[in-house]
Amino acid sequence: MANPISGFSKFTKSEKIDWIITNYFLGDFRVRDRLSQYWSTDKELQRLHDEFIENTITNFYLPLGVAPNFKINDKLYAIPMAIEESSVVAAASKSAKYWLERGGFKATVLSTKKDGQVHFLYKGDRSKLKRFFKSAKEELINDCAPITRNMVKRGGGIIQLELIDKTSELDDYYQLHATFDTRDAMGANFINSCLEQFAKSLINRIDNHKDFTDTEKDIQIIMSILSNYVPECLVRAEVSCPVEELTGFDVVNGMDFAKKFIQAIQIAEVEPYRAVTHNKGIMNGIDAVVLATGNDFRAVEAGIHAYAARNGQYSSLSHATVEDGIFRFWMEVPMALGTIGGLTRLHPLVRFALELLGNPSADKLMEIVAVTGLAQNFAAISSLITIGIQQGHMKMHLMNILNEFKATDYEKNYMVEHFKTQTVTHGAVADALDKIRR
Amino acid sequence: MANPISGFSKFTKSEKIDWIITNYFLGDFRVRDRLSQYWSTDKELQRLHDEFIENTITNFYLPLGVAPNFKINDKLYAIPMAIEESSVVAAASKSAKYWLERGGFKATVLSTKKDGQVHFLYKGDRSKLKRFFKSAKEELINDCAPITRNMVKRGGGIIQLELIDKTSELDDYYQLHATFDTRDAMGANFINSCLEQFAKSLINRIDNHKDFTDTEKDIQIIMSILSNYVPECLVRAEVSCPVEELTGFDVVNGMDFAKKFIQAIQIAEVEPYRAVTHNKGIMNGIDAVVLATGNDFRAVEAGIHAYAARNGQYSSLSHATVEDGIFRFWMEVPMALGTIGGLTRLHPLVRFALELLGNPSADKLMEIVAVTGLAQNFAAISSLITIGIQQGHMKMHLMNILNEFKATDYEKNYMVEHFKTQTVTHGAVADALDKIRR
Repeated sequence: MANPISGFSKFTKSEKIDWIITNYFLGDFRVRDRLSQYWSTDKELQRLHDEFIENTITNFYLPLGVAPNFKINDKLYAIPMAIEESSVVAAASKSAKYWLERGGFKATVLSTKKDGQVHFLYKGDRSKLKRFFKSAKEELINDCAPITRNMVKRGGGIIQLELIDKTSELDDYYQLHATFDTRDAMGANFINSCLEQFAKSLINRIDNHKDFTDTEKDIQIIMSILSNYVPECLVRAEVSCPVEELTGFDVVNGMDFAKKFIQAIQIAEVEPYRAVTHNKGIMNGIDAVVLATGNDFRAVEAGIHAYAARNGQYSSLSHATVEDGIFRFWMEVPMALGTIGGLTRLHPLVRFALELLGNPSADKLMEIVAVTGLAQNFAAISSLITIGIQQGHMKMHLMNILNEFKATDYEKNYMVEHFKTQTVTHGAVADALDKIRR
Repeated sequence: MANPISGFSKFTKSEKIDWIITNYFLGDFRVRDRLSQYWSTDKELQRLHDEFIENTITNFYLPLGVAPNFKINDKLYAIPMAIEESSVVAAASKSAKYWLERGGFKATVLSTKKDGQVHFLYKGDRSKLKRFFKSAKEELINDCAPITRNMVKRGGGIIQLELIDKTSELDDYYQLHATFDTRDAMGANFINSCLEQFAKSLINRIDNHKDFTDTEKDIQIIMSILSNYVPECLVRAEVSCPVEELTGFDVVNGMDFAKKFIQAIQIAEVEPYRAVTHNKGIMNGIDAVVLATGNDFRAVEAGIHAYAARNGQYSSLSHATVEDGIFRFWMEVPMALGTIGGLTRLHPLVRFALELLGNPSADKLMEIVAVTGLAQNFAAISSLITIGIQQGHMKMHLMNILNEFKATDYEKNYMVEHFKTQTVTHGAVADALDKIRR
């Protein structure tokens, strides 16, 4: 039975592992080898990785793959993707090649504004608060000058500051809603520092203001925090080509393919059960690049899915039409990315990934990430409406099961042939292996 | 300038890297060392990891940390977390310890149903289709017997099959909506195989049915695919304690803390900009365990965020109350997880993570994952409403900048002291370092 522990974070890595083995592995010290086989032999490199988070015991290997042939705004990219799911890099590559031969992808950043809020309670005359804000707004912004100095030099800073009355939704609830441009930084630290300064300034300036009563001066700051909902930090990715060129996915007639493709998208537009999986496929592409470039995929996921639900029903992020003989497939997605700060200069493989992409600005990275998502979606829908998703998946599934049973190369080849005409299930593979191993 | 490439996936790993270097690194072959320093020296182990996805060139290190002291349903866990973001493991550990002293976490799986759909177009008499489905339903299910045999043995299988008329939303659009129990498997392959069988059977059986005209027999299957929206695969996690015990987070009065905590949650309930970030924090905890246990975080993310938007406005996943002197904090979240199949037996660190958790069933893993999300949310809100998020973040931010400048231990200690009273910005740290280095 495991015991509670005090001061675990103060243990050395070795002590932490010992404690884990004693408490959760019945003292089986072979577990140490299972963890240390993943350590880098370069101690300094390992120390760097150990320090990224707390209580690190080893490095979780996530495969880093590359999808070449992405033509984006007439430039050719090989895109780094960190992901554990099979077929994703293959699908991205297939899609990239397909569109390479049809003019490539176009992408445009539509806007780059990010938001943050000071949430506070104020019990008093609301018109007084509004008058105060109007007169104090510039001072509140100026109070942030020491924080914004460098960002302003780089062309960013605070774009807007508003007082929002939310008392109809929650008693006494108001916000300072601020809008920022953080240039090539994701900007979380910058935004949060500005917001905490706004909160301090708000309290001080109201406290020193003669118009407010003591009750009114008793403002309660609930919290000051950036938002990961970034509907105005938006990028558009698209492909288009004459309908008759839309062949190659086991389809001979481009118009038949286009019609079915559009129907598949319309289904994702009207049916949330389908929309979730449809968008999940887009995120397979997006997250893999977000991870490889040292960005925060939880932030991107949350912002994009909330955007998919912005009209009251969760719906498809991508859309498609045929007009005047031209097939067009596109999506607009919000995301806050950085190419400086955070992990981007610290993790050697993140540096590699950014160099491989030509050291893009945050705007360029938004375009690349969105295109990868769109490419993924194109490949997924194309499979689904033609051969079905299982043919490809089942081969990977078969290989996974065979690896689990430590099948030899001979056995693998035999089984791939065998299961061309049989349904792959764990039991069926076990049975078939058992037969040839007798 | 980079060139397009054919047959890239057929290249060996070494050839792929050479091609990348030639096309994207001006032939700088030192890049090879930057990638190969991350390879395992154990060739067989490296081959295993290379085969998880396509076009693999190296292993992306994601730190694997451990958060101890999680008491869940009276059992003590040390939870493995794979994540690149600093503070997440520290916050989870702090929260675990706090609740360990207050009775621990309770978690319950509320239901474990998963869904999938065959989306098809049928141009004809709808009552005829409904009559057909009623009479053929059992046969459609029986046609899947070879696929479901093993799952049924394990206690799972097809729970329900329905015909849904969606023609009011899209012309001629119907669904076969199936519900599954996949036991300890995530079940994607199982569900998709059943659905593709349903689609085949539907077409064959209608084709051989005398009641249907030729037009009606011309059913078009658009796609057959599981849904990652799993509102009936639901787990609840919660904590509770007497209000007066709710002290310790820089707060002396438990009721003051509880009130402010509840207000912070109410804000996330009514304000989508806050809800997105609030839930993002929950996902920091959830995804870290999902990744470490070899599950698919894109699937979990998509399902949970769509659930957060199910009532028409994106809102908080967690809730809190004080009733009869008891503080209660809880959430219900949907997620489809597996502890068998996929990566769970293949990735040696996933095996380690599952063993550390006591080789849980899928249900138990749902409980552990949900609790980690709730713990994360508790720590985040507690920081936000007391000292603010920046104090902790800024220290990590400072360390990241110092590492970027390769600061010595002496310089690090000096800077930590220095920035206790100064705002951390990249420029300010650079200036301060510059001063002491002169």
